[in-house]
Amino acid sequence: AAPGGPAFPGQAQDPMYASFTAVAGPDGQIDADELQRCLTQSGIAGAYKPFNLETCRLMISMLDKDRSGSMGFTEFKELWAVINGWMQHFMTFDSDRSGSVDRHELEKALTSMGFRLSPAAVTAIARRYSTHGRIAFDDYIACCVKLRALTDCFRMRDVSQQGFVNFQYDDFIQCVMGI
Amino acid sequence: AAPGGPAFPGQAQDPMYASFTAVAGPDGQIDADELQRCLTQSGIAGAYKPFNLETCRLMISMLDKDRSGSMGFTEFKELWAVINGWMQHFMTFDSDRSGSVDRHELEKALTSMGFRLSPAAVTAIARRYSTHGRIAFDDYIACCVKLRALTDCFRMRDVSQQGFVNFQYDDFIQCVMGI
Repeated sequence: AAPGGPAFPGQAQDPMYASFTAVAGPDGQIDADELQRCLTQSGIAGAYKPFNLETCRLMISMLDKDRSGSMGFTEFKELWAVINGWMQHFMTFDSDRSGSVDRHELEKALTSMGFRLSPAAVTAIARRYSTHGRIAFDDYIACCVKLRALTDCFRMRDVSQQGFVNFQYDDFIQCVMGI
Repeated sequence: AAPGGPAFPGQAQDPMYASFTAVAGPDGQIDADELQRCLTQSGIAGAYKPFNLETCRLMISMLDKDRSGSMGFTEFKELWAVINGWMQHFMTFDSDRSGSVDRHELEKALTSMGFRLSPAAVTAIARRYSTHGRIAFDDYIACCVKLRALTDCFRMRDVSQQGFVNFQYDDFIQCVMGI
């Protein structure tokens, strides 16, 4: 490398690293506001409406293993890959590129991601995340983040893998309010 | 009443009815967007930052007994009373009127509202709802709405009142994702 070149050549070659550090600043960590800027600038959402702040908060809480409220570059890359996967799914079901899906398309998308949910559960989710009967891209991502985090939290407690968890009130609140 | 006067004199005398109907239009129902406009115009938040759309959605889902995704005037008045109570609580703990409270003040506020939560649960909640270590007014309201709805959903299932609920995965997702 030329003199004055990057101190960490491996990371610096990653095109995402420059945009990450520009937002993260010297601490190398991004919080929800910064994640929102980072994702918006990256153009990952394409023609879709980019992520709202609430969705960014959810994303950080999903990956924030040290519970610092912020994320480093490694976690950011992990998140990027996950979002990309979800976006591909969304685009498959948003065949007219309207930027939103209906309840039926949501059901197909969630099923193809491996979630096994009853029609009543899909209806509850669709109702909660829809605006005028349709689920927009950013709400879909918020929905996926939450569904994944809640499923993880349930599975961790479902030690016998029977699909049942006996929740104590305080643990229930901790698990669910933290997401 | 004078000719051309209100068809429903009882409701029309309520000063909130005029602002509600102005936003609701002929169907007499408001959805999340309209609730946000209604609450912002009403000035209920005072000097505090008014409610974000996500909080308005949560509020509607909390009171939306017929699951229509919108609310009528009666539900709106009920919500108004609840928000007022929560705001009084918030103001008690936000002694410097900064518009935000810290984790310790949040704990006192939730305890005084009758929630019995462990320090770990309060920490999880504070982490999730805080920005740079403080919980803003609109996030506090979102937190109260959620905590109340989740507690109701837990209690409904805790038939023996022992503080334990055996959740099946699908029911857990329905209950929690719908809020």
